[in-house]
Amino acid sequence: MGELVVKSCFILFFLFVICQSSLASKKPLRQPCKSLELYYHDILFDGTDLANATSAKVANQTTLGNFKFGMLVVFDDPVTLDSHLLSPPVARAQGFYFYDKKNDYNAWFAFTLVFNSTQYKGTLNIMGADLMAADTRDLSVVGGTGDFFLTKGIATIQTDVFQGAKYFRLKMDIKLYECY
Amino acid sequence: MGELVVKSCFILFFLFVICQSSLASKKPLRQPCKSLELYYHDILFDGTDLANATSAKVANQTTLGNFKFGMLVVFDDPVTLDSHLLSPPVARAQGFYFYDKKNDYNAWFAFTLVFNSTQYKGTLNIMGADLMAADTRDLSVVGGTGDFFLTKGIATIQTDVFQGAKYFRLKMDIKLYECY
Amino acid sequence: MGELVVKSCFILFFLFVICQSSLASKKPLRQPCKSLELYYHDILFDGTDLANATSAKVANQTTLGNFKFGMLVVFDDPVTLDSHLLSPPVARAQGFYFYDKKNDYNAWFAFTLVFNSTQYKGTLNIMGADLMAADTRDLSVVGGTGDFFLTKGIATIQTDVFQGAKYFRLKMDIKLYECY
Repeated sequence: MGELVVKSCFILFFLFVICQSSLASKKPLRQPCKSLELYYHDILFDGTDLANATSAKVANQTTLGNFKFGMLVVFDDPVTLDSHLLSPPVARAQGFYFYDKKNDYNAWFAFTLVFNSTQYKGTLNIMGADLMAADTRDLSVVGGTGDFFLTKGIATIQTDVFQGAKYFRLKMDIKLYECY
Repeated sequence: MGELVVKSCFILFFLFVICQSSLASKKPLRQPCKSLELYYHDILFDGTDLANATSAKVANQTTLGNFKFGMLVVFDDPVTLDSHLLSPPVARAQGFYFYDKKNDYNAWFAFTLVFNSTQYKGTLNIMGADLMAADTRDLSVVGGTGDFFLTKGIATIQTDVFQGAKYFRLKMDIKLYECY
Repeated sequence: MGELVVKSCFILFFLFVICQSSLASKKPLRQPCKSLELYYHDILFDGTDLANATSAKVANQTTLGNFKFGMLVVFDDPVTLDSHLLSPPVARAQGFYFYDKKNDYNAWFAFTLVFNSTQYKGTLNIMGADLMAADTRDLSVVGGTGDFFLTKGIATIQTDVFQGAKYFRLKMDIKLYECY
């Protein structure tokens, strides 16, 4: 009987140690709790195409190099589930980007994805460097509201189409690692 | 006696399971650990009112629509505990906003609340879309310093007063969900 | 024997209570999981020094006071391990700052530290008020990617050298409190 007590206690103590160590090593899962694949469309205003344009230049490029260094663009861009510009938007991307390299194209983004669909209501706030020389670039999802309350994660972007100064499309692969 | 051991072990094992499951479902509390109700006052510089102005336009609106698309304002605005502009500020809001919609008023904010009072020392960093068509809008508190070390949360804003291009006041209801 | 069972159960229950309370008070460690000491060098373009300049003004200062209120600068600045401008950069700081006070120098920063060295690959996203009147100022590290996946922390900056409008150097002491 004493042996049984001792054994039981050993087993429970062992379970307790597991419990503690799982506490000590608490990490968010490497598996995202939510994933979104989206397409972002930017049509830069040229002064005449009011109906179609979704973004406009608010500061001109400087003369520091030949890659539009300093050109600042504010946008309210449609975001769709597939790559078609005219698909019904599931969100708007509202924010800005600017070019920031003197010897190559490179940009920096900060924006909010505003969802107002049957599936999602709420926002994701995103910022980071758009290292255009790389095939894919990771931005940080630094916060969220509504259905995305307090989330964080990674938004991986990839240039899908680039048509001169007029239109470009980004594929956005968003992975969220905290979901409440 | 053997029965007692078995019972004890069952009870402890049950407690252990509760412990584990509370681990597995670890979430930040939906109840904020800190709440702040603040008022933000913005007085846009018109070129002459140097003494009172707290913000200034740094990029002009574009011709993309009639709702100031692209107008960019930098501010160092007083933040008070009640709605009176002349109440002693408990913080400064330092940052910027811009308008970003071609067919309605809509804005985007990024700023720091800088506290330097007897009650709080430190900063809250905030960003997000100001969807002006909505009664209340949620921005993300994406970080904090000092008394707000590593916090995150939601800043819900509401237009309290809007006096043309000159003055507006926002009520800010800040709820923090991580406090250390 | 009954006494032994009761004692064992007391001990286990006590351990269980500790386990629970450590759950309840779960906090990130106050000790950073990673620390970086870096130097940030900013050489403002004057229109002629294309080879050396690393930043450029994209919006002019306003007439709100005499401290460059509203002047907005975009940068792609080298970041080094020691204070020498010509040391091999371990990262680039890409982003912007603007001045935002009418009666003193004060600024606001948002940028990405882009690491691409043998030691680190990935980015840190940082924002916050640069309260230039203070000896040291804390910005928030609001996210990270790559080797800095989902991190958060504090970037403490200190003006190391300030040479008029042309060059300044910041010492950055970065402490990260979530490392995966």
